[in-house]
Amino acid sequence: MDKNSRRAIALHKKLRGKIMVTGKMKNLKSEDIKLVYTPGVAAVCEAIYRQPAKKYELTSKGDNVAIVTDGTRILGLGNIGPYAALPVMEGKAVLYREFGGVSAFPICLGTTKKEEIVAAVRAIEPVFGAINLEDIESPKVLEISDELSRTLSIPVFHDDRHGTSVVVLSGLINSLKLVKKQAGSIRIVIAGAGSAGFGICNLLASAGCKNIIVTDSDGAIYSGRRRNMNKYKNDIARATNKKRERGLLGEVLRGADVFIGVSGRKNLISPAMISTMARDPIIFALTNPDPEIQPGAAKAAGARIVATGSYLYPNKVNNALVFPHIMRVILDRKIRAITPGLLIATARAIAASVPPAKLHYDNILPDMYDRRIQKNISKAICRLGR
Amino acid sequence: MDKNSRRAIALHKKLRGKIMVTGKMKNLKSEDIKLVYTPGVAAVCEAIYRQPAKKYELTSKGDNVAIVTDGTRILGLGNIGPYAALPVMEGKAVLYREFGGVSAFPICLGTTKKEEIVAAVRAIEPVFGAINLEDIESPKVLEISDELSRTLSIPVFHDDRHGTSVVVLSGLINSLKLVKKQAGSIRIVIAGAGSAGFGICNLLASAGCKNIIVTDSDGAIYSGRRRNMNKYKNDIARATNKKRERGLLGEVLRGADVFIGVSGRKNLISPAMISTMARDPIIFALTNPDPEIQPGAAKAAGARIVATGSYLYPNKVNNALVFPHIMRVILDRKIRAITPGLLIATARAIAASVPPAKLHYDNILPDMYDRRIQKNISKAICRLGR
Repeated sequence: MDKNSRRAIALHKKLRGKIMVTGKMKNLKSEDIKLVYTPGVAAVCEAIYRQPAKKYELTSKGDNVAIVTDGTRILGLGNIGPYAALPVMEGKAVLYREFGGVSAFPICLGTTKKEEIVAAVRAIEPVFGAINLEDIESPKVLEISDELSRTLSIPVFHDDRHGTSVVVLSGLINSLKLVKKQAGSIRIVIAGAGSAGFGICNLLASAGCKNIIVTDSDGAIYSGRRRNMNKYKNDIARATNKKRERGLLGEVLRGADVFIGVSGRKNLISPAMISTMARDPIIFALTNPDPEIQPGAAKAAGARIVATGSYLYPNKVNNALVFPHIMRVILDRKIRAITPGLLIATARAIAASVPPAKLHYDNILPDMYDRRIQKNISKAICRLGR
Repeated sequence: MDKNSRRAIALHKKLRGKIMVTGKMKNLKSEDIKLVYTPGVAAVCEAIYRQPAKKYELTSKGDNVAIVTDGTRILGLGNIGPYAALPVMEGKAVLYREFGGVSAFPICLGTTKKEEIVAAVRAIEPVFGAINLEDIESPKVLEISDELSRTLSIPVFHDDRHGTSVVVLSGLINSLKLVKKQAGSIRIVIAGAGSAGFGICNLLASAGCKNIIVTDSDGAIYSGRRRNMNKYKNDIARATNKKRERGLLGEVLRGADVFIGVSGRKNLISPAMISTMARDPIIFALTNPDPEIQPGAAKAAGARIVATGSYLYPNKVNNALVFPHIMRVILDRKIRAITPGLLIATARAIAASVPPAKLHYDNILPDMYDRRIQKNISKAICRLGR
């Protein structure tokens, strides 16, 4: 075990978990208790009963987010169950508080059945202002996300799908500035057709990318393919690959400007494959902990810009740039639907948070701690209207 | 609206709810994030995956309590639904934090169906160390409580049933010292056969009270009664009223030493009824906000000790003396079942927290802020073993 892992375990043991629920008032006096609890609280209950909209004004609902998982697809670890998933969800809750001022509570579910997950989230809806679906296996999670979006009165944010797509688009916007190419005329190959691949493909298409090919373990997804398809891959087939190109990743990557790897497969691409791409290849090798190609090898093979999901290299494509900030705005403005317009505006705002003078091949995304991110996203979404 | 109610609403509006989820570490640096989130957190997940018992050591599970309600029986307000219930649950979470150091999160459910409530609680179990059932209508809640206790691996504390019974027994222990009577030889009449009445009746019987009669709107409950019965009233009939006395409350109260009102009915008993009781009547008129008899009227009719559920009078019989403290010990000692032994030990410890010199007719229970309560309960429960 490496040093960082040992330190992480020691810290978790010392803290016994990373989050706590606490009152907004401290050192309650007996007079305070008559207001926050009986008898005073009864008037607050009655006010909400008479005017249900006051629930957002008089309770914490509008700040509460449920981070919902069933533990089936945790980090690169896979299906490790709801208990082993909890440290990730608590970590996410810590980032929500730290960067977004959001009260996020982990809901690790003791079931992996789609219908039971949907029922549980529907049941707990009243206390939350939004749902964040997290690390649930695909395509089940896409069906859950769609069904909940249709039936809940609060927004359903699916970080693996929405958050990842936003930070990828942000990174791509800035990368294209650097290599002086246009979104409408580049060829993009996305390896992976799970939640992230589906979300990225949809968002890039909405943002004006016209030539996208998505591959899975059977190669390019095209309209009419029979083998290893599902509802979401059919959507991908309809929205991409107009020429119905076939072939394995190595074949379709030929001449591509951008490779985006969300495949879950270490060393999926080789330096030789990069050398067949168009000028100034952009490589987002996002699988954790081991990317589709090592950044050094990609650079040596001619890649102009390389990004990964890891802190070990420059250009970390990090969902934490997105979820705390976008959620803060979603809650504050009571946004109900996670639309492409909302996601594109957020991606542009994040991209614009890197000052032009600081933008270079090894710095395509802003620093997590940059206060401009929140401000820029808020402004951009305000401009969208509701 | 009275002044306290207006102040309560203003405070809730200003705070926008009373609770928040926060990290145990503040001002995270980038080095910290590598420990609480990726990449460091992966080692913590793997440690739990390999040894599931470590979930209590490395996550917040052992401090997390779900306060579960469906909003069907909130305070004296009745079925006001999950949104209007939230201020009460948040208030309870504040007291859990303040007095027990417990992370309690409100789970207000969007369903009132028994099977769906059970399914939702079972689904969210992994993230919690205990469940607190709250303000759900009876007898449904007793069935839910029984089913969850049978099937969950974590304790199910039902405050209306368990918490109320403990504080009533505490008050009774001290009251009997003052009037110099013995639990085994007194006659007790309990008005109300819901969660509280059921819980009190069970606990007093376990604590050695031999002559208990429970009444509902149809009068005394006795073995063989046909009208207006349910599973729990049948249990009551079996455990109490050995002589199968019949009659309305006024009739069975004749000669009683103790009246305990958890009826939900204002002015249920009259001064004339008190005058028919045995010497030194003890009156616990616990219905909120309006008790079964006004304390002044009860005293004038000869009651020696009067307790209510209200802050307006001396002897407030207050669940907050119980739930934060007993929950702290339940979590720390990983107690699985809420047994009569556990509840009796807790009641005795709370009663013993009033120093003999301070015990008098208008001071039968300790002050909420008294630090001895927690210490005494911990010691008493330790003595029980696991």
